[in-house]
Formats: sequence, structure tokens, C-alpha cells
Amino acid sequence: MKSKAIFFHAGCPVCVAAEQTVAQALDPSRYDVEVVHLGEAKGRIPEAEQAGVQSVPALVLSGQPFHINFGAALSDLK
Amino acid sequence: MKSKAIFFHAGCPVCVAAEQTVAQALDPSRYDVEVVHLGEAKGRIPEAEQAGVQSVPALVLSGQPFHINFGAALSDLK
Repeated sequence: MKSKAIFFHAGCPVCVAAEQTVAQALDPSRYDVEVVHLGEAKGRIPEAEQAGVQSVPALVLSGQPFHINFGAALSDLK
Repeated sequence: MKSKAIFFHAGCPVCVAAEQTVAQALDPSRYDVEVVHLGEAKGRIPEAEQAGVQSVPALVLSGQPFHINFGAALSDLK
């Protein structure tokens, strides 16, 4: 069974670089990668917060948050 | 041809979590992942610096540095 990976971003240049490299480098045979733009899908900010995400871009893998470089704080997206 | 991915860390708990999830989640058919412990291989700190790494854990993918959460500053490892 594939694990779920969620890549949260906000369309910033730092986010795009992380998406195009890190998120796309994940093994597609083991991970279903969902890309969520929190600027457009503000309704999913609580989900990101609950996973421990504090800034974007961030990757939630196996339920753990991994902040990748720094684009914007989650609080700035609200 | 496979791309090279280098995961720089320093053995810290944050580093281990990132290695066991993010580094191991990369697609092995597209990436050769090398894991470098900068606490043990201090001679490779200049290489990490040159790639733009400022803290560990960090993943250098396609020549770009991606800092994953924060374990320790590179300057603290010297």
C-alpha cells in the first residue's frame, strides 16, 4: 500500500523550487504525493497546522512535518 | 542516468528523522542517495558549504540545497 505524502506550499519561488525537486523526487511506487496550495485552499490550513506544519514549503511524510527551506509562515497565509 | 542526491547530517535526532523518511523516500530509480555525517566527515564541510548548505539536516538535489527542519548550524560542526 502506498503512503500518503502531502506537499504544502503557497506558490512562492522557494515553494516552487522545493516542489519541482524534492516533492517530485519521491518514489512514486511508494508514495502518493498530493500538492496543496494553502493560498488557494485556505480551508486546509487547519489540517497543515494539525500535522505540525509551521511554514511552507513543507512536506508531511508518514504523518511527520518536514519544513523545506523557508518561504512563508503559516500564520501569514491566514 | 541517475542524479546524485547528498543528504548531509550530523547524527542529531532531527537529522535521523529526516534521513529515515525524506532521504529514504526518494525514488531509487532516479537518484543515487549518499548520506554524509558531517560530524564524522568534517573534511566534507567545505563541499556542503559550496552547495549552499547552512544547517543540517539538508538534502542537496540537482545541485540545490534544501534545508529540512533544523538540527544544527553548519558553523557549529567545525
